[in-house]
Amino acid sequence: MDLQVVRVDLATRVPTVVLNTADAAELGVNPLERVQIDGDSRTTIGIVEVTEELVSPGSLGATGRLGHLSGTVTVSLAPVPASVRFIRKKLDGVELERDELRRIVADIYEDRLSDIELSAYVTAAYTRGLSFEETRHLSAAMADVGARLTWPDEVVADKHSIGGVIGNRVTPIVVPIVVAAGVTVPKTSSRAITSPAGTADTMEVFCDVEFSLAEVREIVAEAGGCMVWGGGVNLSPVDDRIIRAENPLSLDPRGQLIASVLSKKRAAGSTHVLIDIPYGEGAKVESLPEARELATDFKRVGAHLDLRVECAITRGDRPIGRGIGPVLEARDVLTVLSGGGPTDLRHKSLRLAGMLLECCGVEADPAALLDSGAALAAFHRIVAAQGGDPEVALGDLRPGEETWALRAARSGVVSHIDNALVGEVARRAGAPKDARAGVHLGVAVDDEVERGEPLFLVHAEHAGKLADARALAERTFPVHVRDAGETLVERL
Amino acid sequence: MDLQVVRVDLATRVPTVVLNTADAAELGVNPLERVQIDGDSRTTIGIVEVTEELVSPGSLGATGRLGHLSGTVTVSLAPVPASVRFIRKKLDGVELERDELRRIVADIYEDRLSDIELSAYVTAAYTRGLSFEETRHLSAAMADVGARLTWPDEVVADKHSIGGVIGNRVTPIVVPIVVAAGVTVPKTSSRAITSPAGTADTMEVFCDVEFSLAEVREIVAEAGGCMVWGGGVNLSPVDDRIIRAENPLSLDPRGQLIASVLSKKRAAGSTHVLIDIPYGEGAKVESLPEARELATDFKRVGAHLDLRVECAITRGDRPIGRGIGPVLEARDVLTVLSGGGPTDLRHKSLRLAGMLLECCGVEADPAALLDSGAALAAFHRIVAAQGGDPEVALGDLRPGEETWALRAARSGVVSHIDNALVGEVARRAGAPKDARAGVHLGVAVDDEVERGEPLFLVHAEHAGKLADARALAERTFPVHVRDAGETLVERL
Repeated sequence: MDLQVVRVDLATRVPTVVLNTADAAELGVNPLERVQIDGDSRTTIGIVEVTEELVSPGSLGATGRLGHLSGTVTVSLAPVPASVRFIRKKLDGVELERDELRRIVADIYEDRLSDIELSAYVTAAYTRGLSFEETRHLSAAMADVGARLTWPDEVVADKHSIGGVIGNRVTPIVVPIVVAAGVTVPKTSSRAITSPAGTADTMEVFCDVEFSLAEVREIVAEAGGCMVWGGGVNLSPVDDRIIRAENPLSLDPRGQLIASVLSKKRAAGSTHVLIDIPYGEGAKVESLPEARELATDFKRVGAHLDLRVECAITRGDRPIGRGIGPVLEARDVLTVLSGGGPTDLRHKSLRLAGMLLECCGVEADPAALLDSGAALAAFHRIVAAQGGDPEVALGDLRPGEETWALRAARSGVVSHIDNALVGEVARRAGAPKDARAGVHLGVAVDDEVERGEPLFLVHAEHAGKLADARALAERTFPVHVRDAGETLVERL
Repeated sequence: MDLQVVRVDLATRVPTVVLNTADAAELGVNPLERVQIDGDSRTTIGIVEVTEELVSPGSLGATGRLGHLSGTVTVSLAPVPASVRFIRKKLDGVELERDELRRIVADIYEDRLSDIELSAYVTAAYTRGLSFEETRHLSAAMADVGARLTWPDEVVADKHSIGGVIGNRVTPIVVPIVVAAGVTVPKTSSRAITSPAGTADTMEVFCDVEFSLAEVREIVAEAGGCMVWGGGVNLSPVDDRIIRAENPLSLDPRGQLIASVLSKKRAAGSTHVLIDIPYGEGAKVESLPEARELATDFKRVGAHLDLRVECAITRGDRPIGRGIGPVLEARDVLTVLSGGGPTDLRHKSLRLAGMLLECCGVEADPAALLDSGAALAAFHRIVAAQGGDPEVALGDLRPGEETWALRAARSGVVSHIDNALVGEVARRAGAPKDARAGVHLGVAVDDEVERGEPLFLVHAEHAGKLADARALAERTFPVHVRDAGETLVERL
């Protein structure tokens, strides 16, 4: 059926087309089903919504994602995507071949899979697991679709943390150190999904983070590196869609994680990659053997993709740094870059920067680059290139004025800080949407505290959200204090 | 945020609401995310689409499914549904408790789950399986939501086939026989999804099949039974949504199947139910032991729901009847009801009717009810009550005029007729949308044929579709003929 493209002012996050009821009936297509749209020697998939009046018969209403459509197009029922059969096969526990995985990736890329089919793929990968061979093929397939950056440099460095630790804002410290050593670092980061801040949210305190690929090239040419939001550059469209299906159930199948991270790094044109794998109670990886196994897989798959991969296995059972939430984390970052700062954040950043430089074969002392101000200068150049004010000072970064302190109910020693709960308190306070909201930890694990001493301070921009955060903190008390002299042995 | 409801002329099959970009940003909600809409002491869930101009700030655009909204409503971010945690638990292989399953059913009923979450539930049930206890709780939970029919009769009969066999249009024969014996049968059926015709599609050749619950009550009061489309009466809204998530990957987890069927029968007010379980090569259930196990589970779960369940284990490796497609099947039905007809269809119908009557404790001879014309009279009453012409004769049911015959390539004996392939040929020919399209089998398994004799005749309404069907039939040749004397033993 030939239809004339008209615009419909709707954004749906999927390639929605609006058809008149009459045309939909003639095509035999129902709402939510898929049509194939052929025009200008290009085939596009559309998801159908139906209307009586919004779009007249003979027209095809193209919404937000389908801006490239125009003129007359030929619309037909989309055939069942080939990969549906392979997803079913995986659900039945059968290992998939290279070409079957490539077909799944291609169908995700071309928007051929519905949310139901995409979710079935993710849960199949989760419940059945992906073998090493599957992971390798999947990584290569994902790296081969979408845009790709290339750089003149022989060595292009990158880092990634598998996440799960709050605070932990090491990227805006590690990247400037490595850039200061003369290595190109085109870093893309995510925004928070379930956490109180992602690296992109924290960087947004200093400068813009949403850029086109062309702009990213200019920024890196100017500053030697960048720290931008990955979602804006469309470097890994398949990964973005898979993540959208993983998030609701917090699924993160290991093979899919490896493929997502490494294909993204390859698309960014990186050659040397450091992966931070925090492990421990409450982290994504709970045990050391598990962390080591994941590290081995990352390195092996990396080798198949021509990526030199190094892994840092780090503590994931407690927050890193004092600030949690965009502005509070930005304060930690600026303090460390200025030579001070929470020591755990400083030490972890130096360790990661050192490992990444060594992996790149660059001889440089990260501590010297930090203490000489070279890293801060590199940070300023990146901020300026991304449209921010390089003169920004600590005094400019003001956390929310509504505050409340959680105080120690007894004197003793801090024995545990619950990552997930403190993160949730910061989110209730408004982070990441309210950039100045969050939690400032007054203590670290093993610190001695007096009864009544503040354990953390909640900052909010709105009194209502402060009250929400306070209620959760009082109910769950996420910082544990034990008697100073008390140890497991003594209690026995 | 308080918003004024306005209508937006869009049908999306899900509860879509259209928000102005400004309001969406203030709520912090993105396209495809869910909002909670409170108004008139009722809470509704909406799935967000965003617009610049279609809906102005301060308004909430309600689409097709949300016709009940009006006036001013309070809109907020929908909390994560509680059942998401339980779905994740099931994905991890943990058996679910009664209350967890009830929460999942309630969240599906209230539209709180996205397609991604719903699909994860279905795939979890498929890959991890549902225990007997889970199946029992799920069935009870599904029976407890949605509308429910009640009848003055002590015995209310029903039948269901788990499907997978083409032709097999026994329902319009069994129901009239049982009704003729004085038993109430409020039968709801489905339309075809992947097959060339469902019972509702075939009944639609004779009369209307879409009715409200109130109309169904009147029809049954008048005719003693009905054969209506189940999708129209909203008796099992949860089941309808689960089926939508099962279909794309042809998933049919056994526990979910049992819960779907029995909860629907219970909602229809039935007390005595016969389940037809076809088994064999190409059927949904491949082996006899598997069929027996399924039958046992159906009966056990039924007992917990106060349903008396009987199961017929039948041959599922070949078509039943000669016609495939709405009109062609309607012809078979009318012929059998008139005392003739394909013998396999007649025999199977009599067997099922006999079992159902026995299960109901009614002494009656199905063959006598059929041959005396009592069943045909009951059929006519139902057709008339559903707005059809009871005088309909075989001559009124004309299959499509575009025809092509698949002819035997050799003389011999028909050894196999492929259910799935013949079904697909009928679909290519236009069934079920083109009611007069389909396949008429000229032979049955074990028939002797001469070279060049027609094996089946394809009927279509349009020449193009006939060509499509012919191409598939010629390529796959779904009726197998072996040499007359040839047997497995002789070949060895």
